[in-house]
Amino acid sequence: MKISELAERSGVPLSSIKFYLREGLLPAGERSAPNQARYGPAHLSRLELIRALREVAGLGVEAVRAVLQQLDQGWEAQGDPVGEALRAAIAAPAQAPDAAAREELRAAEQEVQAFLEGLDWACDDHPRHLFADAIAASLVQVRRYLFPGYAAADLAPYARVAWLLSEVEYANSPDGPRVPMPGDDLTDPTRRAVLGSILFGRIFSALRNAANAMRSIRTTAGLPIPPPER
Amino acid sequence: MKISELAERSGVPLSSIKFYLREGLLPAGERSAPNQARYGPAHLSRLELIRALREVAGLGVEAVRAVLQQLDQGWEAQGDPVGEALRAAIAAPAQAPDAAAREELRAAEQEVQAFLEGLDWACDDHPRHLFADAIAASLVQVRRYLFPGYAAADLAPYARVAWLLSEVEYANSPDGPRVPMPGDDLTDPTRRAVLGSILFGRIFSALRNAANAMRSIRTTAGLPIPPPER
Repeated sequence: MKISELAERSGVPLSSIKFYLREGLLPAGERSAPNQARYGPAHLSRLELIRALREVAGLGVEAVRAVLQQLDQGWEAQGDPVGEALRAAIAAPAQAPDAAAREELRAAEQEVQAFLEGLDWACDDHPRHLFADAIAASLVQVRRYLFPGYAAADLAPYARVAWLLSEVEYANSPDGPRVPMPGDDLTDPTRRAVLGSILFGRIFSALRNAANAMRSIRTTAGLPIPPPER
Repeated sequence: MKISELAERSGVPLSSIKFYLREGLLPAGERSAPNQARYGPAHLSRLELIRALREVAGLGVEAVRAVLQQLDQGWEAQGDPVGEALRAAIAAPAQAPDAAAREELRAAEQEVQAFLEGLDWACDDHPRHLFADAIAASLVQVRRYLFPGYAAADLAPYARVAWLLSEVEYANSPDGPRVPMPGDDLTDPTRRAVLGSILFGRIFSALRNAANAMRSIRTTAGLPIPPPER
């Protein structure tokens, strides 16, 4: 296909495609005339990857380059190229996701809110603390880029794990769980809650990345997959 | 105490304290002479909170202001002031954490790596994919700001939940788990792995925040705590 068709089919503006070609992120097409080149399905799928990394993962051009370099080393240089690419993407600082279409987002937020309020661990107070807005923003992108029919209710197994994790988090504090009561001074509890949430959030996120990487490596290599301890 | 003692005991430079006073993040001391004010333990604990929000949580001044505003509304305006403050902190964009002392970090990384390699789901290949570096960076800060004696092995319950979560993540894909095999084209698997990891990571992180908030609200209000489904 010509570059104009590549732009149309990928949804990526012509100017961006030319930029990616100049930067070497997208390989040159096959020259078909002095001022024209032809592109194939590999260019299209590469472009969809670049677009996903830029728009959804929020990666800068250099981070995208790092991911693509891992990818291009392929199976020869390493046993787990997708894992290497993923590590490069996760290590890179991400920008905030772009604002999704307002109406789509609002509908998703209502759906997520209803799903969350139906969980046995939810309560009626403080509905904003169910974080439906954050979940809906990502759910909209899951539908757009991964699984078009994905429903909020499909998140039920994740919600079960989240509740189990919160039990672990409360029990795991060396001083025991400390929830301030009305009238208590809040400064130190706030400091501990904010830091604990952020630091253990980062730790758990890294453990999740590790667990997913190990599951992927074990699956690819045909190694046994230990069952989770419950 | 005088402002110089406040600086010494909090470890916050005098110039920063003066800045926080000017910005109204720290309330003025009690005037004791035309050019001198006295500060109490409430100033010290407030300053430790500000420092934690700035240095560890990586919040900008305006985000710190938002957290403190929630805190200052206290128990009168809302039933869950720590939760409101936490939400303000989590919603704010964070900077990268500052570089911790190299030696401390290296020792922590070795300890974390050894802990991870002892997990039944780890494998010998690809030790970098255990993300010991990311975990160690946060562990060092947990020790510095929250629990001085926290050991890598104390993370075992988190690691168990992470492995359970990875089972859910593999099973929850509508197309079933798809792990590329040597020789497959990697572009689309990479796009799906990167997007899936980042988007479901954000979703799970929001669900964790929701679960912790609900557990805290239930505990404070004396509501029943449903056991996790296993």
